[in-house]
Parts: sequence; structure tokens; C-alpha cells
Amino acid sequence: MRVASIYEPVREDLEQVERTLDAIRQAEQFSELRKMLEHVLGGGGKRLRPLMALLAGKFGDYRPEPLVFLAASIELLHTASLVHDDVIDRSSTRRGRPTANALFDNQAAVMLGDFMFAHAADLVARTDNTEVVRLFSRTLMAMVSGELSQDLSAYDYGQDIVSYFERIGGKTASLFAASSEGGAMLAGAPREWVKALYDYGHNLGMAFQIVDDILDFSGDEKEMGKPIGSDLMQGTLTLPSLLLMERSPESNPIKELFRDRRCSKHLAEAVFMVQNSDILEESYAVARDFAQRACAALEPLPDIPARHALGDIADYVLERRA
Amino acid sequence: MRVASIYEPVREDLEQVERTLDAIRQAEQFSELRKMLEHVLGGGGKRLRPLMALLAGKFGDYRPEPLVFLAASIELLHTASLVHDDVIDRSSTRRGRPTANALFDNQAAVMLGDFMFAHAADLVARTDNTEVVRLFSRTLMAMVSGELSQDLSAYDYGQDIVSYFERIGGKTASLFAASSEGGAMLAGAPREWVKALYDYGHNLGMAFQIVDDILDFSGDEKEMGKPIGSDLMQGTLTLPSLLLMERSPESNPIKELFRDRRCSKHLAEAVFMVQNSDILEESYAVARDFAQRACAALEPLPDIPARHALGDIADYVLERRA
Repeated sequence: MRVASIYEPVREDLEQVERTLDAIRQAEQFSELRKMLEHVLGGGGKRLRPLMALLAGKFGDYRPEPLVFLAASIELLHTASLVHDDVIDRSSTRRGRPTANALFDNQAAVMLGDFMFAHAADLVARTDNTEVVRLFSRTLMAMVSGELSQDLSAYDYGQDIVSYFERIGGKTASLFAASSEGGAMLAGAPREWVKALYDYGHNLGMAFQIVDDILDFSGDEKEMGKPIGSDLMQGTLTLPSLLLMERSPESNPIKELFRDRRCSKHLAEAVFMVQNSDILEESYAVARDFAQRACAALEPLPDIPARHALGDIADYVLERRA
Repeated sequence: MRVASIYEPVREDLEQVERTLDAIRQAEQFSELRKMLEHVLGGGGKRLRPLMALLAGKFGDYRPEPLVFLAASIELLHTASLVHDDVIDRSSTRRGRPTANALFDNQAAVMLGDFMFAHAADLVARTDNTEVVRLFSRTLMAMVSGELSQDLSAYDYGQDIVSYFERIGGKTASLFAASSEGGAMLAGAPREWVKALYDYGHNLGMAFQIVDDILDFSGDEKEMGKPIGSDLMQGTLTLPSLLLMERSPESNPIKELFRDRRCSKHLAEAVFMVQNSDILEESYAVARDFAQRACAALEPLPDIPARHALGDIADYVLERRA
């Protein structure tokens, strides 16, 4: 699969999404804010969510204008949530670049996130579709709840895989689901196709987050742009660490790490144990299972280029290395 | 004027707004978050904005359900913006109580604000009125821009009264205006009444913020719950300090204070100069002028109890001492 092919069916409108984001930045009177927006929106993101929204619009009456508004709104909402999450998690790097809170400060990052939330809300309102607006607000709630539950349960040893799935369902999969569901809604696609695209997005988002959580153990620190094991270091249990705890309920270093939070010996030990087991393989199998469900959800849809592109996104999500 | 009288025409539905806010808090699974919500929503606020939204609904087809959703949404949006503003401004007290960032920490306060933004967006979407949803998102943009412009121009000596009016128009008056305008929209009031209620809310909000800024110089520290001169200390120029600069362009201590930010001598001197001049009187005259414009805007409206209550709110805004 060539990555470029996934963008093909909607390339022009995706460029329009970029121009919409640029226009928001350039219209801003404060140069500090323009600089911050450029930093967080220009980080070479894959724009997967806007892409999904546009592709989903192909399964009905494809009207570029409301779809571009939705796609840009989703990218802003996504970026705003990353900016605030980095404040909340005290993260200093993301994809090898300093986070907004590290580069500017917490105060500026809060402001920046709020600014993007406001523009995201404005853009989605401009779709003039109440159903899509309600989808947006429900999704924001789900994302915040997922992030809250991650932060309020940090260093809490008593979590299980069910609560992990719930957590990433809110934090990540809800926005993937809203992207494809919202695009289909705007195009006035038939109910069952909207439902299919919701299922696709949700399952794809689950796969995406699990791969993210695997890469936190196995990825290349340079490519990832953050240290290995950073989730555990922040007290966040993900699928690989939960599997490690399931397998060695009595003797595993995570318990110690969560008690004595700054001890890098326990962290290194936990990472070593995960890497030298079949845990990452098993985690990939779970991610693959979600990605397969995502593709299976596409079956009722007509066989058009957009459907192939959505299928290719699922492959990309599994294959990505950073 | 008895303060209680302003609540009379919509007392029951205002209680329903309270119950809506309580329900959001109680439905929350995390006890930490419930505690934070109780702290910021239970601080004895006057609920002026929800009150205005409900009263404005009386000028058309008054339907409690969407109006209560709007009113609760506005109070949440207001509270969320205060919580984030306190993070951004590094404020530690508000109305004599510790701010969320002081009591918990910046990270928790960001989360708390986002949680309330999400619920506010959800509630406004439940009014099922796209015009009102767009009003909400435009208002959020105006508020964020006002706050941004305040923060990005902090300690900038080269500001004038025009930019001050613009700034408080976004930061404060926009939400007052959206409250009464939005209530009237939901009730399907005639266009010119909606416009009248927008004008009322905008001018009232301007008066409200100017009184706030006066009280920062003249108020009782105990009643206000924050030190005198705290705006200047944070580098924020307000009407009284701008008038001081206008009158003594060459020799005033604000220039020094903004250069040497931690010198309390300059602050005390500036406060003394403002207090021992007619600057506060002149500032009150400006606030009174806005409040009168607010009342004048009500003239085209029918003479019903809600109109009297709105007029009384204007008196209350001028008379309040904290």
C-alpha cells in the first residue's frame, strides 16, 4: 500500500481543509498566537481524521463546503485536546518536537487549546446540521471523560483491560468514529451506512490507540520523539502493561514503579519484561482484530474508491512505526 | 431594589438550572472531579447570566426546556472560562476562596475547565436550535479572544481606552449579550426584540466589567476576596488605570510598575493616586452610562414583569460592592 493513495479521492478538499486552518492562523492579530498555532498545526500530522470525514462524505451527496468545515473542526478539536493533554500529563515532547507547554508555558498552552476549541465549535456550527453539532459535543464529552479517567486513575494499580478499552474508546476512538460518522451524516447517507461508518471509525480508533501504546514500548525513540515507556512513567496502564500484570500478578515491577514513581530501575525492568515476551505480539493481534472489524464494517458500503481508501487507512494504522 | 425581586419571574426554572448543574456533578464517577465541580459551581454565584437568559425567554413563546438547557450551558461556559482564566492569570483567590488551580493544581484545573466546556457544548446542542448553537460558538470565540488580548498585552504600556472596551466587550459583555439574545432567540421573539435584548446584554456586561475593575481599586479586600490592585499587579490595564495614565502621561507609577513587576511600592502609589482623585467617580459615570444604555434598549419591549426584572439587574450591577 502506498500511503499517498489513501488521500487520492479527496486530495483537493483536503487541501481546502489546510487552507481553512491556515486562514484561522493568519487572521489572528497576535503574532505570539500565530506562532503557537503554526507550531501545533504544522507538525506534519497525517490529517487522518479530516481524511476520514471527507472520504465518508463520498457515501452520499458529497458537498465540499460543510464537509471541509467538519474536517477542519475535527482537526482543531484533535489538536486542542493534544495541547491540553500535554499540559495535564506534563509532557514535554510529542513526535520529537517540544510540546506547546514546554516551548511556551502552561498558561499559553491553556489559552492556545481554548482558542482552538472555540474555532472548532464555530466550524462545526457552520455545517448548519444540528445532528452533527450534537455529535461534536458528545464526542468532546467522551474525549474529556477518557482523558479524565486516564489522569484520575494514574498510578492506580487496580485497573483492568475492560476499563482500558473504555478509556481509549473515549480518549481516541470517539473522535475517529465521529469523523467517519459525521462525514456520512453531512452527506445524508442512509442510516445503515452511517452506522457502518461509525463502526469503522470506532474500531479503527481502537486499533490506532493500541498501536500507539505498543510503540511506547517497542518504537524507535528518535522516530517516536519521546522516551520508551513514557506511559508507564506517567502512571498510565496500557494494553502491554496490563497484559504483563495479568501474567505476573505477584512479581512484576509495575507495582514497585507506581509506589516509587521516580525509580527508573523498575521502569527499565518492566520495559524489558514486555519486550522479551510475546506481549507485544499479543497486543498487535488485538489491534489487528479491531482493524479487521473496522474493515468488515465497510462491507455494506458500495465499492467506490473512497471505500478502498478507508480500507487502506486500516492497513496504514497497523503498519505505522511512529 | 430588593435583590430577590430580580429572580421572581423565573424562580422555578432557575431552580431547574441548579438541578441540571447538580445532575452533571452527581453523575460524575470520579469523586475528585465531583469535589472540584462542587467547589467551582457552589461558590454562591449570583447566576446573573442564566437569569438573564430565562427572563429574555419571557418575550416570546416561553418554553422551559430549551431555555433551561441554554441557561445551564451559559453558567457552565462562564465557570469554565473563569477556571481557565485563573490558570492563565496564575490567580490564587477568587471571591475570597482559593481558585481551582490553587486548591488542586494547574493540571486538574485545565481538566475541570475542559469538562465544563464539553458539558456546556452538549447542553447548548440540546436546545436543538442551530442559530443558538452558532451564537454559543461565536461567543466562546469572543471570550477567548478577549482573554487572549488581555494576556498577550499584559504589561504592555501602550494600550488605550478603545482597546480596553474592545477587550472587555469580548471577555465579559459577549456572554451577557449572548444570554439575553439567546433566550429571546429560543423563545422565537420578533427580530427587533432579539436585537433589543442583545443591546441590553452587551451594555449591561460592559457596565458589569467596569464596576468589577473599579472594585479592584476601591473594594473591601475581605468582601472582594482578593488584594486591591490585583489587575495592575498582573499587568492588566483597566479603565481606572488607563484614566490615570491619560491624566499623568509623564509621571505615573504604572510605567515603573510594568518595568519592575514585583515592586509593591509602585503599585501602592498607583492605587493611592487613583483613590485620591475623581478617577473612580468618572469610571462609575462610564459604567452608569452603559447601564442606562442597557435600560434604554429595553424600551421597545412590552411592559411585563421580566422587563422590570431586567431593569433591576442593571441597578444591581451598579450597586454591588463585591
